Amino acid sequence: MTDSWLNKVNWAQDGLVPAVTQDAAGGRVLTLAWMNREALKRTVQTGEAHYWSRSRKKIWHKGEESGHVQKVRSIRLDCDEDVILLEVEQTGGIACHTGRHSCFFQKLVDGKWVETEPVLKDPKEIYKK
Amino acid sequence: MTDSWLNKVNWAQDGLVPAVTQDAAGGRVLTLAWMNREALKRTVQTGEAHYWSRSRKKIWHKGEESGHVQKVRSIRLDCDEDVILLEVEQTGGIACHTGRHSCFFQKLVDGKWVETEPVLKDPKEIYKK
Repeated sequence: MTDSWLNKVNWAQDGLVPAVTQDAAGGRVLTLAWMNREALKRTVQTGEAHYWSRSRKKIWHKGEESGHVQKVRSIRLDCDEDVILLEVEQTGGIACHTGRHSCFFQKLVDGKWVETEPVLKDPKEIYKK
Repeated sequence: MTDSWLNKVNWAQDGLVPAVTQDAAGGRVLTLAWMNREALKRTVQTGEAHYWSRSRKKIWHKGEESGHVQKVRSIRLDCDEDVILLEVEQTGGIACHTGRHSCFFQKLVDGKWVETEPVLKDPKEIYKK
């Protein structure tokens, strides 16, 4: 398999594109993270989601510390070819570093952001290092 | 209702955040677009998705030309407060300017991007102006 499919992606000037990740089971949107060419390549090679951490400025194998890896079921590209959509099997059912299923746990209700999702596991139990 | 909820969003230096939009009915991710403060405010005020068009550099009321407006069912914010998730009722069932349900119609299969979604309506019929 050549890497020509990687050239189809319209990487931005900083080399990144947003990657939306959706739970294959319940359909919930879990995370939005960022990928560079290498992250997408490793995602395909390993079958597990890899992103580019903008804060740590390095490739980030999702779940490398928590064990909550994302097993990739499909990879899609949008019409402008500058956004990736992953469909994944979320290990542990927890995608968020706060211990919740999804990172999108704040909902706008009557002009206020309200936390609507339970913490499934205490982050202290997730990140023991 | 004050605008204080708008201050909770971590707008990037360019004043934008990514907004993921998901179909309330089937759960499919339809689009990723961008919002500034004004776009999010108008989305809440009107109950229909408004974005910031980076190419046209103006507020864009989704469906203003095509009629394929997105009626907003919920608005969520992620843990880093820099990504919006909209759940919408997609008028016409078509979110993509190519006439497809979702913009994510290219799927990676054996190292190639394959178009997997039917065109529901010819774009020439959608954009008559």
